[in-house]
Amino acid sequence: MTASSNEPAPAPQQPAPAHKGNRLSIRIDLDSGVRIGPGKILLLEAIARTGSISGAGRALRMSYRRAWELVEDLNRNLANPVVSTAAGGSGGGGASLTPTGESVVRHYRAIETATADAAKQHLAALGRMSRTG
Amino acid sequence: MTASSNEPAPAPQQPAPAHKGNRLSIRIDLDSGVRIGPGKILLLEAIARTGSISGAGRALRMSYRRAWELVEDLNRNLANPVVSTAAGGSGGGGASLTPTGESVVRHYRAIETATADAAKQHLAALGRMSRTG
Repeated sequence: MTASSNEPAPAPQQPAPAHKGNRLSIRIDLDSGVRIGPGKILLLEAIARTGSISGAGRALRMSYRRAWELVEDLNRNLANPVVSTAAGGSGGGGASLTPTGESVVRHYRAIETATADAAKQHLAALGRMSRTG
Repeated sequence: MTASSNEPAPAPQQPAPAHKGNRLSIRIDLDSGVRIGPGKILLLEAIARTGSISGAGRALRMSYRRAWELVEDLNRNLANPVVSTAAGGSGGGGASLTPTGESVVRHYRAIETATADAAKQHLAALGRMSRTG
């Protein structure tokens, strides 16, 4: 079935409200001392998307210094680096995820999905205890 | 086989290292704005155990003021209070969990168990990427 021109136009897509719904947040602490949470994962994904640490920092409104420190923290504490950088001007070189970096993102997102699913019923029960309105 | 007196004395029990193993931490944000994490849950459990907010604060090395604020944050943002307090001197009255308080603890701990289980394999995979030694 194809959409007919008589159908109402679809509502414009709304950005998801920033703090809506009952939400589970996760953070991972590895034995080696490294901590992996949503900020570092968003950064790795932005590096993959923008092709540079500076571009990723801009996309996330994060200073280049901060973005670089987060990447370095992962590079130092994992057996292999998560980001490889190409030579370039100060902060200007390109960057991409290594296979380890891609794997970290994939496992983190898999944990996020699996835990959200596992928490669903109890989270809804907690939500029903909330003050409404 | 029983221990012989020739065997070396067992090593004194060490407290578990505070940050050992690959660990998943969770936090819950409910639609109403209330945030529930390990600190508030430990506090509720300590109130149930000690029978007072001040006793729970002492057990967790937390000021009475801080413990009281955390309880108030939950009481204000849930439909029913989590702790009921009896009259007493300044900070001296007894306190106990309400059915809502018990339910919050139970659902939170259930989420913790279910998510740890759901994350297990991917968490181990991330752990194998850690720098060792």
